[in-house]
Amino acid sequence: MDQRITLVTLGVRDLSRSIAFYGALGWRAHPSSVEGEVAFFDTGGLVVGLWSRDQLAEDSGVDDGGGWGGVTLAHNVDEAEQVDVILSGAVAAGARLARAGAPTPWGGYSGVFVDPDGHPWEIAVNPGWPLDEAGRPQLG
Amino acid sequence: MDQRITLVTLGVRDLSRSIAFYGALGWRAHPSSVEGEVAFFDTGGLVVGLWSRDQLAEDSGVDDGGGWGGVTLAHNVDEAEQVDVILSGAVAAGARLARAGAPTPWGGYSGVFVDPDGHPWEIAVNPGWPLDEAGRPQLG
Repeated sequence: MDQRITLVTLGVRDLSRSIAFYGALGWRAHPSSVEGEVAFFDTGGLVVGLWSRDQLAEDSGVDDGGGWGGVTLAHNVDEAEQVDVILSGAVAAGARLARAGAPTPWGGYSGVFVDPDGHPWEIAVNPGWPLDEAGRPQLG
Repeated sequence: MDQRITLVTLGVRDLSRSIAFYGALGWRAHPSSVEGEVAFFDTGGLVVGLWSRDQLAEDSGVDDGGGWGGVTLAHNVDEAEQVDVILSGAVAAGARLARAGAPTPWGGYSGVFVDPDGHPWEIAVNPGWPLDEAGRPQLG
């Protein structure tokens, strides 16, 4: 199994609400998305999908624990100020602020918002992971 | 907020077991991983992290639902045969086979394994998403 991921699917309760939420953050669904069924976001080689949580659970062969299930996404940026701007924008769009932007023990700066379906996103500056032109972290 | 993800962190109960599991699939932790604390896998611009589920929940400002929480990862390949090989390898390494490889309603072929911590991975061929040289899906 090659060391890569092609798709991260987030289960949602109300697809149009979720598309509106990510749209408010600046994300645009790919034209191949199917209205009322599924939305795909091309994040530069990795696809983020939004799909019915019930259908995703069934398709994945798992029981739905009903809450958070041990997965957190992160979005790294270059400057602490960007962290705060993104967190503010997410809250304005309907997210819950789970952790305000602040310096981290590992020498960075980060905060967390939780999307309308309970999926947490850490917005972070990590000096150890400089971002390339495409915004991909370089672990060195 | 740019349309990209930099890190997907999977909460785990036993880090060494999880590193061994992904290692058996062919994944190699990055040297910046901290033994006994956290493991990072460079998947070509996206980082996959393995970290204590309890610490991840606290850091993410969420309550742990205790089970699956609405996120499924996918790994696309070119041929149906590769799907079956990867699923077999994952099961041999300790995964649960949640859905055997089979043709899908959307014209592809896929199956699902669930890792030792309950995180599902769909292994799929999607003719509508050809993979580039780096294995990144091209939505067209």
